[in-house]
Amino acid sequence: MAQTAEWLGIPPEHPFGLAALPYGSYTAAHHADEYRVGVAIGDCVLDLTTATDRVMPGRAHLFRSGSLDEFLAAGDGAWSGVRAEITRWLSDETCRPVIEDLLVPAENVSLRLPFTVADYVDFYASEHHASNIGRIFRPDSEPLTPNWKHLPIGYHGRAGTVVVSGTDVRRPCGQMRPPGADRPTYGPCVRLDFEAELGFVVGAPSHLGEPVPAGRFAEHVFGVCLVNDWSARDIQAWEYVPLGPFLGKSFATTIAPWILPLAALEHARVRPPSRDAELIGYLTESSDWGLDIDFEVRLNGHVITRPPYSAMYWSPAQMLAHMTVNGASLRTGDLYASGTVSGPDRTGQGSLIELGWGGAEPVPLPDGSSRGWLQDGDEITITATAAGEGGARIGLGSATGCILPATPE
Amino acid sequence: MAQTAEWLGIPPEHPFGLAALPYGSYTAAHHADEYRVGVAIGDCVLDLTTATDRVMPGRAHLFRSGSLDEFLAAGDGAWSGVRAEITRWLSDETCRPVIEDLLVPAENVSLRLPFTVADYVDFYASEHHASNIGRIFRPDSEPLTPNWKHLPIGYHGRAGTVVVSGTDVRRPCGQMRPPGADRPTYGPCVRLDFEAELGFVVGAPSHLGEPVPAGRFAEHVFGVCLVNDWSARDIQAWEYVPLGPFLGKSFATTIAPWILPLAALEHARVRPPSRDAELIGYLTESSDWGLDIDFEVRLNGHVITRPPYSAMYWSPAQMLAHMTVNGASLRTGDLYASGTVSGPDRTGQGSLIELGWGGAEPVPLPDGSSRGWLQDGDEITITATAAGEGGARIGLGSATGCILPATPE
Repeated sequence: MAQTAEWLGIPPEHPFGLAALPYGSYTAAHHADEYRVGVAIGDCVLDLTTATDRVMPGRAHLFRSGSLDEFLAAGDGAWSGVRAEITRWLSDETCRPVIEDLLVPAENVSLRLPFTVADYVDFYASEHHASNIGRIFRPDSEPLTPNWKHLPIGYHGRAGTVVVSGTDVRRPCGQMRPPGADRPTYGPCVRLDFEAELGFVVGAPSHLGEPVPAGRFAEHVFGVCLVNDWSARDIQAWEYVPLGPFLGKSFATTIAPWILPLAALEHARVRPPSRDAELIGYLTESSDWGLDIDFEVRLNGHVITRPPYSAMYWSPAQMLAHMTVNGASLRTGDLYASGTVSGPDRTGQGSLIELGWGGAEPVPLPDGSSRGWLQDGDEITITATAAGEGGARIGLGSATGCILPATPE
Repeated sequence: MAQTAEWLGIPPEHPFGLAALPYGSYTAAHHADEYRVGVAIGDCVLDLTTATDRVMPGRAHLFRSGSLDEFLAAGDGAWSGVRAEITRWLSDETCRPVIEDLLVPAENVSLRLPFTVADYVDFYASEHHASNIGRIFRPDSEPLTPNWKHLPIGYHGRAGTVVVSGTDVRRPCGQMRPPGADRPTYGPCVRLDFEAELGFVVGAPSHLGEPVPAGRFAEHVFGVCLVNDWSARDIQAWEYVPLGPFLGKSFATTIAPWILPLAALEHARVRPPSRDAELIGYLTESSDWGLDIDFEVRLNGHVITRPPYSAMYWSPAQMLAHMTVNGASLRTGDLYASGTVSGPDRTGQGSLIELGWGGAEPVPLPDGSSRGWLQDGDEITITATAAGEGGARIGLGSATGCILPATPE
């Protein structure tokens, strides 16, 4: 396993070691409002915009805007070329003079949304989550709808309200129908929830009318990020028939500031769970894109669940093939999320509606309180690590958000 | 009523007279691939990019990119200021030397998507359409879901596949479940349909967490355009429970190349139909945004329906208030569409699924053939006119698209 240069002093167990190298967009005090592309390494951020200007002039234009947009669009040749160069700088002692002054302590930077979100799609790829939601929302029906095992169900969400980790989330207002009532009421959402998800960031676009096969997943998808798909369950329950979730989801979606490239996930790739239904051709896969990624969700600092991504039924390559099988084109910056990551039991459910079973069994917290739903002031932090080489774990950073009270009338 | 300057020779009944002045983005042979903002006037297009550079330098930066993006973002002060100036140029004979060389015959220009689509939302605002679809898709239930009269139902669509009028539409492939089967099949969509809709183009953005009241509709929405929400009914029927339409809609959405500003619709504003259910406060309106706009849909040149927009249950001001009541922010370039415009009877239904009642009663054509669903090679053209002053009609241009056969396996 490649080691970082000794002078960097990064312990091998650090989640942002040389095997990670996620990309973000940041400012620091010494360049104020000017954003640059950065790479997380240990407890520092490498100023990639300046580094490429200095020693990789052929790629420098990809980072000059300070966002990842141009780099994402440049395709997998550029992605692997740039990663190889950064790896060399950080592992070869002789590169110290070239980059030492470009390492900024992470605590001194301010991170923003790292790329321009084009279309945002949210899938529903966990059998455990979909079954639990079915039992809670539609107790009189089969938990899974008849289509669930034949296709990865998804829907479009609001790209304009994707926000970066650390952005406060205002409790939404809206219509909801109290149990047993025949008319809706209006007010602040009562059943406010989080959903721990993994997001996939599209780099290379595709042409309208041309499906993208599952086998081309790694040519089009640049990397992954943590996602919190905040959900207003009472608003959602009233609005979602027949056209799906709308305002129950569109008020905010938080993503981590760091995009971890697929290249960092080579050791995390695992076979997905066996599928029960025979799949239509375009959903069959020639290689495994299940992912050994372990999530942790903290509520006010206390771990409340540890969802295992390896339990997801549909792989991201299948999601991509399905999303484009009708000829829908991809754009640079498209973001699609997995849907809530839930494991088979209570210790790994990725939303409060499951952990607290629709409010019936509130989750106890160490301060003696409990949560059926999120309260004002609550902070949710999602972190995750992916399997690396030889038992190492690779970090994905964190996606955090704090609930602000609803706007007064 | 203001007249165009006599030397322009535009008859008063022309749909693109002085009362219309829609904006688009075009190239012409003499400036090749360089796009400019144009204003339709009679059978010509006024080169607004060059005109503002020449005689309105304070606004010229709004049009230099050749798209409407900067102008949309500039807000209602800029919108009314620029419209007043264009009106003066075209009505005052003394302005002839200033603009005469900037009028290009419309037949010589090539029009593109006039603005960058941010988020795309599709509503479901026609009671007649929603009732018909309910009867066809869910024959054993009440046609309208219990929420329908309490809120304007909507969902997010795919912004990246919004295309300009004239773009061919490839028949999508996907999963569908034949009647009575317990498993899906895969293949080209059989039940391909159009939906005639009106789109609303957001100019001025709003802040995350701050709802936009219905009364601020005209501050945020710049104008309207014709929309064809192409629909694959068989794909949609299989996929849409529980998270709504996805691939059945995302393969293509056609819009007209001309955006007609709200200022052109002053005489088209009418009271919407009376509402049956008492509305929650944020959906009440202080002014009328029902619209007297008459649609026509042609299949291969033959008029098959004339949907009346004035019959729409929910107004665009209500749609805007609903879309943002949860604090979701608006961005410049957000497009939201009305949903299919259908009147109370067969002569005004805005989709083939209604006109042919789910394929059971195919629509006869003059060549002796009939259509339950769209065939390869079929061309759908949507046009519309809005009520103007003193019985005049104002044009919205047209949204046209031709069906290409599905891609061979």
